[in-house]
Amino acid sequence: MLDVCLLGTGGMMPMPNRFLTAMLARLNGRLLLVDCGEGTQVTMKLLGWGFKAIDVICFTHFHADHISGLPGILLTIGNAGRTEPLTLIGPPGLSYVVEGLKRIAPELPFSLQYVELKEETPNPIEINGFRISYTLADHLIRCYAYRIDVLRKGKFYPQKAEEQNIPKAIWSKLQKEGRAQWEGKVYTADMVMGQPRKGVSVVYCTDSRPVDRLIPFAREADLFICEGMYAEEEKKQKAIENKHMLFSEAARLAKQANVARLWLTHFSPSLSEPELFLETAKGIFENTELGEERKTISLSFTE
Amino acid sequence: MLDVCLLGTGGMMPMPNRFLTAMLARLNGRLLLVDCGEGTQVTMKLLGWGFKAIDVICFTHFHADHISGLPGILLTIGNAGRTEPLTLIGPPGLSYVVEGLKRIAPELPFSLQYVELKEETPNPIEINGFRISYTLADHLIRCYAYRIDVLRKGKFYPQKAEEQNIPKAIWSKLQKEGRAQWEGKVYTADMVMGQPRKGVSVVYCTDSRPVDRLIPFAREADLFICEGMYAEEEKKQKAIENKHMLFSEAARLAKQANVARLWLTHFSPSLSEPELFLETAKGIFENTELGEERKTISLSFTE
Repeated sequence: MLDVCLLGTGGMMPMPNRFLTAMLARLNGRLLLVDCGEGTQVTMKLLGWGFKAIDVICFTHFHADHISGLPGILLTIGNAGRTEPLTLIGPPGLSYVVEGLKRIAPELPFSLQYVELKEETPNPIEINGFRISYTLADHLIRCYAYRIDVLRKGKFYPQKAEEQNIPKAIWSKLQKEGRAQWEGKVYTADMVMGQPRKGVSVVYCTDSRPVDRLIPFAREADLFICEGMYAEEEKKQKAIENKHMLFSEAARLAKQANVARLWLTHFSPSLSEPELFLETAKGIFENTELGEERKTISLSFTE
Repeated sequence: MLDVCLLGTGGMMPMPNRFLTAMLARLNGRLLLVDCGEGTQVTMKLLGWGFKAIDVICFTHFHADHISGLPGILLTIGNAGRTEPLTLIGPPGLSYVVEGLKRIAPELPFSLQYVELKEETPNPIEINGFRISYTLADHLIRCYAYRIDVLRKGKFYPQKAEEQNIPKAIWSKLQKEGRAQWEGKVYTADMVMGQPRKGVSVVYCTDSRPVDRLIPFAREADLFICEGMYAEEEKKQKAIENKHMLFSEAARLAKQANVARLWLTHFSPSLSEPELFLETAKGIFENTELGEERKTISLSFTE
């Protein structure tokens, strides 16, 4: 089961009633954070999932509203007792930017490992069960959309194992590690397990224009968290200039990618009543919902 | 009249119910900010004094809870339309630290002017009527306490001016500029004005042990905003180790400096009910008050 929380719904600057957009994912007690603006640690405190288990922070891009909370959260993670290395993933220049911010957090009880995303067609990064993929978004500066998949192995068939006289003592190892040895003989998972089953997935995309490559990238996701900086159709020109999306554009992406549900977020400070524009988006993609502060979902495996 | 607002009362990390400690002063519509932690721009938004008129930001020291909000607020000041230079004042290393933070706010529509405080017995800095003095605090890293004075000129005596046949046309200039010329003759303010009168003053001290030099520095201030990281006397050893103050130590400073009133602030996240400890502090210095989020006072000239 993958728990996903949208930590805030704001864009551009933190507001009294709106934390900045960021996402926290939890799997087997481990945490993955995407983006970390000013105040992200405060909404995380309200959420209550803790700080120590954050193993990785992914950054979409280096605009301040997506990263300015980093020095503070690193100190808070340290105060929570973390000593294991923490992985930071982001666009090229990540270490330059973070080392600049770290001038006000020079001493941490854990080390930082930088992963700068240079390849356009990358292999996913696997960290503690989170399978992290990414693709280029289309923003004013280099920006990435992220997809987190939790894979699910095929079903185990005890009957097959018995038929092939595979000793019970290695059944568990075979399922977990895909390979086991007994009395000199090697057994592999494909002998006893079915095809991999559908896992769960969440896609996070902000800030971006609705470019075509986002469609295969978000395909069939259980949850698509997508920016909708502007709601009104009249703001299309502004959206194009500032490289953001309208609600309708995000909804169209969601429909084309055939996701299970869309959460809109990253609302402009000038968009004080996003609920007024939800119906239009639902007209394009029925399973559209508005993001809310700390809106949370548990994505479970389905048979 | 000098308006002073304590923007938050927290120390160490921003909390859901407590913004980090910072002070905003307003004089003739111009603003001076002392410290700027994560979320300071949010509490300022709630206060409503605006952002564009911030002419100077003073930093006590470079621990993240006092400066991590800088990149965000600089962007917000820019979005508010400022194009005039902004002065930053702080300990040595200021430009190094700020240039690091500015990696996520590389393009601002105004320039920054750095004033690094190197002298121990400095001349005050005058900016738009704010007379800024400072002294070394005693913290884990180099840290300054600030004093903001608004000076007040002596009274103008029209009778004296008339007696000396000073033409009315230059009365105003004489009072404002201290010197005026008329038909080749020079007149000076001392001919028509009394001694400078008592101005108003606020002293801001956090983070520090209660060292003696703070007493003359805070002498007779109208408002002394002072840290009280810990309330319980049993935490004295912790206060000494972490270079902070107890409520009682701040109250003793206030009494010795004979200030008009003391506001306690910079409460530890573990201090959830500071009000339980107010009476002890009042026992030492009667005019002790607890800081509150956006607690505001207007300091007026008195006759």
